Amino acid sequence: MGDEFLNLLEPYEAEKILNSLELKKSVEKVGIGECSGRVLAEDIYSTIALPPFNRVAMDGYAVQAENTFGASEDNPKVLKLIEVVGAGDQPQKKIMEGTCAEVGTGAPAPPQSDAVIMVEYTEKSDNQVMVFQGVAPGENITKKGSDIEKNHLLLKKDTVLTPDKIGVLSAIGMAYIPVYTQIKVGIISTGNEIIPVGEDLDYGKVYDVNSQTISSAVHSCGCIPVGIKIIADDFKVLKNAISRLMNEVDIIITSGGTSAGAGDVLRSVIEDMGEVLVHGISFKPGKPTLIGTLKGKEDKILIGLPGYPVAALVVFESLVAPFLRRNSGVSVSDESNTIQLKISRRFHPSRGRTHHLLVKVRDDIAIPIQKDSGAITALADADGYVEIPKSTEILETGTLVHVKLFRRTTGLF
Amino acid sequence: MGDEFLNLLEPYEAEKILNSLELKKSVEKVGIGECSGRVLAEDIYSTIALPPFNRVAMDGYAVQAENTFGASEDNPKVLKLIEVVGAGDQPQKKIMEGTCAEVGTGAPAPPQSDAVIMVEYTEKSDNQVMVFQGVAPGENITKKGSDIEKNHLLLKKDTVLTPDKIGVLSAIGMAYIPVYTQIKVGIISTGNEIIPVGEDLDYGKVYDVNSQTISSAVHSCGCIPVGIKIIADDFKVLKNAISRLMNEVDIIITSGGTSAGAGDVLRSVIEDMGEVLVHGISFKPGKPTLIGTLKGKEDKILIGLPGYPVAALVVFESLVAPFLRRNSGVSVSDESNTIQLKISRRFHPSRGRTHHLLVKVRDDIAIPIQKDSGAITALADADGYVEIPKSTEILETGTLVHVKLFRRTTGLF
Repeated sequence: MGDEFLNLLEPYEAEKILNSLELKKSVEKVGIGECSGRVLAEDIYSTIALPPFNRVAMDGYAVQAENTFGASEDNPKVLKLIEVVGAGDQPQKKIMEGTCAEVGTGAPAPPQSDAVIMVEYTEKSDNQVMVFQGVAPGENITKKGSDIEKNHLLLKKDTVLTPDKIGVLSAIGMAYIPVYTQIKVGIISTGNEIIPVGEDLDYGKVYDVNSQTISSAVHSCGCIPVGIKIIADDFKVLKNAISRLMNEVDIIITSGGTSAGAGDVLRSVIEDMGEVLVHGISFKPGKPTLIGTLKGKEDKILIGLPGYPVAALVVFESLVAPFLRRNSGVSVSDESNTIQLKISRRFHPSRGRTHHLLVKVRDDIAIPIQKDSGAITALADADGYVEIPKSTEILETGTLVHVKLFRRTTGLF
Repeated sequence: MGDEFLNLLEPYEAEKILNSLELKKSVEKVGIGECSGRVLAEDIYSTIALPPFNRVAMDGYAVQAENTFGASEDNPKVLKLIEVVGAGDQPQKKIMEGTCAEVGTGAPAPPQSDAVIMVEYTEKSDNQVMVFQGVAPGENITKKGSDIEKNHLLLKKDTVLTPDKIGVLSAIGMAYIPVYTQIKVGIISTGNEIIPVGEDLDYGKVYDVNSQTISSAVHSCGCIPVGIKIIADDFKVLKNAISRLMNEVDIIITSGGTSAGAGDVLRSVIEDMGEVLVHGISFKPGKPTLIGTLKGKEDKILIGLPGYPVAALVVFESLVAPFLRRNSGVSVSDESNTIQLKISRRFHPSRGRTHHLLVKVRDDIAIPIQKDSGAITALADADGYVEIPKSTEILETGTLVHVKLFRRTTGLF
């Protein structure tokens, strides 16, 4: 009744095989209003100097600094007001000896002015300004290019576009941003017992959970879930579905149909269409995970997750998500969905396999959830999971563990 | 030349005033495929039992357990195979004394069977199965409702819909999910010097940064930025723009035009249209921040951020983002974009005001970025910021600081 897994791999071996495969990266330009969370595909250089002109930093009067030297309350210097220049205006006159211009924050400093004296140290009457304090050359003027000169590197390729970085792109006026095209992930749930949400539940059937969890998780990796389908455990039907889907997507993720049991046809389909590279990983839960390639005009990767929802999700998070994110251009250092917490009570992991233990987080403590991988309420309670190496015999109460949260800081937010 | 701020508030006072205002919450139903990152607006109860039937947990033979008692390698029990039941099938026959059914993982356990014996402990020939080991009642069958009974609380209102929680909703077959309607945020950049990205840069002009950073930040709070506009510093023009926009949105965020200077008209517009509640917060940068209300068919809130990009973004993150997220139904405990790190070198904050210091993070160390709030390269380098209380005189090298990252873990991912 079915073969056992021929070759159970350690997680690091499976990762190595998966990481030896690569998804083709392409680049597209998207409007700056739509690039939040996307990943920059090119180094970005300043196409203009910033600020683009000598910029007034305070409301006041633009002067030649030396005209103010020696000014005091008792002995003010008197300057002739020749112009008013607000932000956005173009100054029309040069500042000469004995003259000044009223300027607003953000205005260009008029030609030949070299300082701005703050309005607090002055008094205006008609077209004359009394200056009660000297100002040093350069004061209250931000020099053109002092923030960055033209043609300098501003942002590196592979930067995730958070609001601050989008600000940088705006400052140089970029309207369209070169980003990596989002990876298209085809998603299939297999199983004769699976029916779509929203339908009536006949006896013996269960609702499709995995295509929804995996779609959402794919989306949170900055990828696009497509062609979500439920397919029966039938060689021909499954092969047809995969054949059609593989031409529309960059990678296919299935769930179910990977156990070494009676109704399992996925392995045979992959063997027929390409090659099984991994079948069986030393995970608990998640042992029946499969990695294969499909031959075609373009070869595609297929990852077969286990059918049980908890198993499918933790294998996705621990194995597939890092792969998708790296292939989306996100560097590993941007993976900050991990927090370090103490465990609430003694826990005996299942030895001999890497154990993914669901936990809930309350008051900065990680509380183990011990339910089988078919239990949906485990997902209702969980905030994330802890990866326990197979060599660990026991986790004592209070041991520090790394909790990987089911939410992520980057990807499309 | 303009009034100074009449009343500079402490950040906690401004927060209190802002939090006394509330945005109207409404609820909508969205398809389960579109609800990633949204916030649940109702408690969700199990509408079915899970599993919905007695579910086979292992490939094997469904039996009456007592028929296997005493079985051994030497003395197998022999059972008559009466049916094959796969996942998704409906069993047609009852298991009686001396009979069994071949069952696959996920199949319903046939009526009157009370255990499944694993295939490893059996041998099949024709329609007879030899059983070499006894099995206890209940073994390898997951009882109907053992995960959760019908009508029990599954997920609480205000839960952020991460992939795992979407799995829970799928398991009970929900196709449409009640979530809070996303808050619509109107965004206006003010200033005569501001021009949209993509246009040619005339002398004296700068590109609009704030509407892009604030839109992106609004989006990452799970809200919808709308009606993004650049408006001149002119009373009539600005008033018209705000009047029109306020009917389309839940809240308006402007930037620029809040300093107590020459070209600043925002305050007068708010005074004309409603009430200024806060003008001036003891922030560095960000002092000129304004909070007001606009009278209308429905009163609306307006928040005026400073014009300098760094100031606008950190005031948004520290003051506005928590407000938007709380009004989106996200609980404060879900705000996990903060990490604790050591500071790389001694830093003297500006005393007397809450200082928001931009930092970059390298090798788990927070490195202060000391540039003025008009500097765009500060944003290029930054990963987040540290909020330093006004009473802090000095941060010694190695002091632990809380870095708020410019990326967020929840909201729409």
